[in-house]
Amino acid sequence: VPANDRNAGLVVTVDLGGTKILICLFDEDGRVADQEWFLTEARRTPETVVESIVKGIGRVLTRSGTSIAALEGVGIAAAGACDTKSGVVVNGPNLGWRSVPITRWMSDALGLPVWLGNDGNMSALGEHLCGAGRGCNNMVYLTVSTGIGGGIIANGELYVGETGMTAEIGHMVIQSTGPLCPCGKRGCLQTLCSGTALVRNMRERLAMGASSLSMFHPLQLLDLVESKPEEITSHIIFEAARRGDALSLSILEDGARSLGRGLTNLVLLLDPQMLVIGGGLAVHWDQYIAPAANELRRATYPKSLEGLMVVPAVLGDKAASMGARAMVRQRSHKR
Amino acid sequence: VPANDRNAGLVVTVDLGGTKILICLFDEDGRVADQEWFLTEARRTPETVVESIVKGIGRVLTRSGTSIAALEGVGIAAAGACDTKSGVVVNGPNLGWRSVPITRWMSDALGLPVWLGNDGNMSALGEHLCGAGRGCNNMVYLTVSTGIGGGIIANGELYVGETGMTAEIGHMVIQSTGPLCPCGKRGCLQTLCSGTALVRNMRERLAMGASSLSMFHPLQLLDLVESKPEEITSHIIFEAARRGDALSLSILEDGARSLGRGLTNLVLLLDPQMLVIGGGLAVHWDQYIAPAANELRRATYPKSLEGLMVVPAVLGDKAASMGARAMVRQRSHKR
Repeated sequence: VPANDRNAGLVVTVDLGGTKILICLFDEDGRVADQEWFLTEARRTPETVVESIVKGIGRVLTRSGTSIAALEGVGIAAAGACDTKSGVVVNGPNLGWRSVPITRWMSDALGLPVWLGNDGNMSALGEHLCGAGRGCNNMVYLTVSTGIGGGIIANGELYVGETGMTAEIGHMVIQSTGPLCPCGKRGCLQTLCSGTALVRNMRERLAMGASSLSMFHPLQLLDLVESKPEEITSHIIFEAARRGDALSLSILEDGARSLGRGLTNLVLLLDPQMLVIGGGLAVHWDQYIAPAANELRRATYPKSLEGLMVVPAVLGDKAASMGARAMVRQRSHKR
Repeated sequence: VPANDRNAGLVVTVDLGGTKILICLFDEDGRVADQEWFLTEARRTPETVVESIVKGIGRVLTRSGTSIAALEGVGIAAAGACDTKSGVVVNGPNLGWRSVPITRWMSDALGLPVWLGNDGNMSALGEHLCGAGRGCNNMVYLTVSTGIGGGIIANGELYVGETGMTAEIGHMVIQSTGPLCPCGKRGCLQTLCSGTALVRNMRERLAMGASSLSMFHPLQLLDLVESKPEEITSHIIFEAARRGDALSLSILEDGARSLGRGLTNLVLLLDPQMLVIGGGLAVHWDQYIAPAANELRRATYPKSLEGLMVVPAVLGDKAASMGARAMVRQRSHKR
């Protein structure tokens, strides 16, 4: 037993996303000792998905010669609204899950303590403790991807509210007469500036007869966009914009303006020192995040902006796992 | 000197609003021992307003036979964005103030420590410690009045962010194509559902030729509304709606829907146990706040609503002063 009990933990994490599931084994020093991933296959039942996860954990432990009894616990970062107190995935639209008591199922199967957090919350914790937000006591993390999620660090700790369902940033309404969101509201942030929103906007504009500039700049990419709208992705829109396509530029401009409004709301409510932005669309920093940050600067009191940093996330697809590990360490010591 | 130093403090508070200034002297037990108020008169310079406040404090102390040296400090709750670390009112549109270092001016004049907070934040702290939110660790306070402001209690403490400029709830954008706010943005919450917004909407609808139902229900009140639009107040609109005026009902319905969206955003971001709502429009609870709360219930995950309470503030016009007193007690002990 090491002298410092706080460094004692071997931890397994499960990043349970709508597309794939990533299992990591963390060693005592917080490094990833082993990992494996597989596709989520949303059409399967929650029971069989959890079965696959338990088997996956078994394989990772076997490969690394770790006994299950040596583990401090398991941390799950799930794509959806999570009741972190009862350990239930309340609503995971990308998983097709509703009210799934995943921590009970997994702790029954493994004989270990299991804790659950929302993936955006876990990424926020990861970036705060190990990534872009180290040393920053008040921080908001956003992931801008097919959807938009996030987490809030307040006074140096992950803010979990009453049930753990905080920072549902993608469902913040900023345009109440805007497009309908699957959640039932109109104009949720993610209906206006997620990757999905950009693609939907492009398809709608093309269907309404808008033409991209491809007739003047005959680029293969734009030909593809116009002839096969079902193949449009957000990355194609960014590429087209880089090549000067006016329609793509206009769609990104609208999206960045909406994202900027979302950032502004967060800053006006939470006055953080740092906004950390990750997710698939953050790689298009100069084209998308920087214009959104400019919108924020125009819209917010100069004073709250003096020390404000808008920075890219640095942990990539490990952020949620690193946060889930930290959650296990923190909550296991509170038991 | 009392045995328990934490109860030792005599504190003066200043609730500095756009309309009036309320000075309170709190005794060691946190009761208001004396008070006085006077009008703000916004056309005066910040220097002369502060001079009046200092004189007012002198009168209160003289009346109660309290020596200035006996005071633990002075707490100011100001209507505007406040940098609580440097003690500067950054932007107080209702005061006509910009970058006013009020704590320095006042502590120079009084020879006492002086602390500053935003009035919505201070009311949140007051309601949390002494009012509707006692014992509630995660709470959001809103004041719905001519404008909209508030404060956030997170993990049992007033959340102050990096500079103290938090919970600018009235400037949260919920309708980005909506009416222009003096802040420069469009569709800020307070442009849609504050008292000012209700009156503006009524005037616009009347100017566009909408008629209230007064021609069918010849009530004096509605005649007034139609014949002298400059005399419309939000309370007249509520009274007209109570008497069945369709135009007033429609304007309140729109406003309550927007307010509901604002409440939804707060719940989705902060997952509080309680929303405490005060301000002049909260007296119309059944007509305005209850419909907004219903909108919230329709729009939010059932799970985050299970324990959520939406309740009226109880401290009335003393909330900000009681919060400012608490701020002095807390910060004075941290020095």
